[in-house]
Amino acid sequence: MSKKLTLRVVKIGGNIIDDDARLGAFLAGFAALPGAKILVHGGGKIATQLAEKLGVPQTLVEGRRITDAETLRIAVMVYGGLVNKQIVARLQALGCPALGVSGADGDLLRAHKRRHAGIDFGWVGDIDAVNAPLLDRWLGQGLTPVVSPLSHDGQGQLLNTNADTIAREIAQALSQAFFVELIYGFEKSGVLLDVNDDTSRLARLHYAQYRELRSEGVITDGMIPKLDNAFSALQKGVRKVIIGPAECLSQLVAGENGTGIVWEIE
Amino acid sequence: MSKKLTLRVVKIGGNIIDDDARLGAFLAGFAALPGAKILVHGGGKIATQLAEKLGVPQTLVEGRRITDAETLRIAVMVYGGLVNKQIVARLQALGCPALGVSGADGDLLRAHKRRHAGIDFGWVGDIDAVNAPLLDRWLGQGLTPVVSPLSHDGQGQLLNTNADTIAREIAQALSQAFFVELIYGFEKSGVLLDVNDDTSRLARLHYAQYRELRSEGVITDGMIPKLDNAFSALQKGVRKVIIGPAECLSQLVAGENGTGIVWEIE
Repeated sequence: MSKKLTLRVVKIGGNIIDDDARLGAFLAGFAALPGAKILVHGGGKIATQLAEKLGVPQTLVEGRRITDAETLRIAVMVYGGLVNKQIVARLQALGCPALGVSGADGDLLRAHKRRHAGIDFGWVGDIDAVNAPLLDRWLGQGLTPVVSPLSHDGQGQLLNTNADTIAREIAQALSQAFFVELIYGFEKSGVLLDVNDDTSRLARLHYAQYRELRSEGVITDGMIPKLDNAFSALQKGVRKVIIGPAECLSQLVAGENGTGIVWEIE
Repeated sequence: MSKKLTLRVVKIGGNIIDDDARLGAFLAGFAALPGAKILVHGGGKIATQLAEKLGVPQTLVEGRRITDAETLRIAVMVYGGLVNKQIVARLQALGCPALGVSGADGDLLRAHKRRHAGIDFGWVGDIDAVNAPLLDRWLGQGLTPVVSPLSHDGQGQLLNTNADTIAREIAQALSQAFFVELIYGFEKSGVLLDVNDDTSRLARLHYAQYRELRSEGVITDGMIPKLDNAFSALQKGVRKVIIGPAECLSQLVAGENGTGIVWEIE
């Protein structure tokens, strides 16, 4: 019988970070979560607001944000500094031994600047390697890593990196050593059969069912890449993906809220 | 015979951080330094420049900067984010396994908001405790902590904290476990017999000699608190303090530059 411990990798985005009451509720739930855990946070509006105040124009190409040098500096200040350290200080106050890091710290997330035939995304990183042994040691010491959405290229360059992707890569990299649950904070109650009805939430979703609901047109649009991403993580060793409201973390973990995504019904 | 290893705690200030060529020279020297080491960095002009751009007035009372809430946010962004993460990424590129932290991370530096009868310094922290066991573990794992000048009060509040003081407190706290050399980067070549002549540097300075030079008026003004601080560290277990140009680190460590401050001649 395996003696793997459970590790929870929790991702929160701007919808929580920008709302102090929701962030407080989330952090209390996260601090109270027993066992090994890692928090990955995104950015939120603070970076956009700071860019506006500093007169740094935000460039979008085909609807996607370009990270020029000034925008990267702002991301490093806001995500790597302000958001990360404020979360860490608040978790410490809640008795959670948080350690705030970027992907450069301890060579945690090695990446390369995104290569794309059509668009130069600027200083955006696609992850090549996760330093799983280092995360494993920190978890073994009782520390709780809090990871900002930044990676580095090993040549001295920091890179802006999607927090959902970081959470997935970390979850996959640690699934050798742990039973990993990957929890995506989300603005809805979970995967819904009717997108306008929050009570139509599926408690569980497995792959065969997902394919069926997708072919029937029940699951559409933005949910498809999210769920493809989730099933891809499951194929790479992650045991369960949970999508739901991050401020209800204890309910998500208990299966009382959100949608638990699994490869097949056990 | 003691088997203590040598640990070097190196502090750099704004004069290095603001000068990219000097910072590059320093980082190359720091990365090449063998053995256990910790870097503590100050701020530099970037925070002041950002405050100007954002229209955040900087208040001085009796010549001392007040850290109001907006100034603290800037300090957390610039020191905890931009400066810290850029140094870490550059050290990683030089093969140095840097781990950038603030005093909140891992409860590294617990502090209280400064109490002062006459002046409210704002969100400035005076250190109560250093988490030496955690630093010791990281050093044992081959990591090189890079510490930004921020502490926390354990109640969720980050605090602006003097980098010289952080370096001294860390050096003192680790002097049980290591032979600690505390190296203060400085704009001059060391302690000078003639403040206008960089070649009048003292290679070594011990306490009896310091008292003599001070009573003779050779050592004056700003050097007195610096050296009082250094001798205080020596009394609390630090083996040696070196003051000199940070970009000449290998020379400082070899005794070929700067001034080695020791309690008495061995």
